[in-house]
Amino acid sequence: MTKDVVILRYGHRVVRDYRVTSHCCLVARALGAKKIIIQGDEDGSIKTSVNDIVERWGGSFEVEFADSWKRVIEEYKKKKYLIVHATMYGSQIQKIESKLRKSSKILLIIGSQKVDSEVYDLSDYNVSVTTQPHSEIAALAIILDRLFAGKELDKKFKNAKIKITPQAKGKKVVKQTN
Amino acid sequence: MTKDVVILRYGHRVVRDYRVTSHCCLVARALGAKKIIIQGDEDGSIKTSVNDIVERWGGSFEVEFADSWKRVIEEYKKKKYLIVHATMYGSQIQKIESKLRKSSKILLIIGSQKVDSEVYDLSDYNVSVTTQPHSEIAALAIILDRLFAGKELDKKFKNAKIKITPQAKGKKVVKQTN
Repeated sequence: MTKDVVILRYGHRVVRDYRVTSHCCLVARALGAKKIIIQGDEDGSIKTSVNDIVERWGGSFEVEFADSWKRVIEEYKKKKYLIVHATMYGSQIQKIESKLRKSSKILLIIGSQKVDSEVYDLSDYNVSVTTQPHSEIAALAIILDRLFAGKELDKKFKNAKIKITPQAKGKKVVKQTN
Repeated sequence: MTKDVVILRYGHRVVRDYRVTSHCCLVARALGAKKIIIQGDEDGSIKTSVNDIVERWGGSFEVEFADSWKRVIEEYKKKKYLIVHATMYGSQIQKIESKLRKSSKILLIIGSQKVDSEVYDLSDYNVSVTTQPHSEIAALAIILDRLFAGKELDKKFKNAKIKITPQAKGKKVVKQTN
C-alpha cells in the first residue's frame, strides 16, 4: 500500500507558472503527499503562501526547490522510491494502479514545460490519465486518489487552526485562536 | 448512472483566470463532460484554443458563455438536471457519490472568485473534495472520475486526427492527415 508520496514539479517558470504550480502544491498537500520539490526557477512567493496554508490548516507538508531534476530522481532512486512520471503518453493509470499501490514510497513527477526524454527512461513507470491533453493538476489529483485508493479524502491534518465541518448547505468553519 | 454532465464555470475573469479556466475546459472535455458554460468575462481566446483541441483530438465538447449564473442554473433545473456545486464546505464526495450517480444529468458548478451564497441554496448538493483549500481543477477531476465511476478514462473521441497509443516508455502518436 502506498504511504509516502513526494511530488517533483518539473520545469517551473516564475510568473508564468505561478498559479498552476501553486495549485499543484495545494493539491499535493490536500490529497496526501508529504512534500513537493519544485525544479526550475526558485520562487519564494509560492513557498511562503503554501507555508501559510500549512500553518493555518495543519499537517506537515513541505515545499523544496531543486536545480537539477536528474539529481532529485537519482537521490530518490537511492532511497528506494518508485519513480513514476505523469505523461499523456504513458501506460493508463487504470491498468497499472494496482501495481503502483504495491510500492510504499513513490516519487511522482509532473511536468510543466516539455519534459526531457531522459525522464521517460529514468522513470520506472510513465503513467497517463486519459490519452488526451488536459492539466497536470488534474492528473496529479487522479493519480494521488488512485495511489491512496480514496483514503486520502479522509486524511486528518494535525495542529490545524482552521477546520471545516462538511455541510449540505452553507459553511461551517471552526477556528482555534490562541 | 450519470451520462450527461455540463460544467458551469462561475466568475471567470479575463487575463487573471485564463490558464486555470483553460485547464478546467480541457479537464471537463478529457474526463467526459459534454459542455462547459463560462460565466463572467467573455473570453474568446479560450473558446478558440479549446475548439482547436476538439478539432484535432476529436469528440464534440462545447464552450459557451453566459452573463448570469442564475439564469443558467434555472435553465438546467427546468431541463431536470441535478444541480451540484463543488465547494470545500460541502458534503464529502465519498459520502454522496453513489447518490449523485443516480442522476443521469448533472450541472456541476465550479467557482473561481468567491461564490454568491445563493449558489449554495439553489444547488441540490454542495460537494467537497477534502475540506482543505486546493484547486477547482483538481476538484473537477475527482468529481467527474467519481460521477462516471472511472469509466471516463476509457472514453473514445470520435473523428480524432491525433491519437496517442499508451506506452510504457517513449511516445506513440498516430496522426491522420487528409
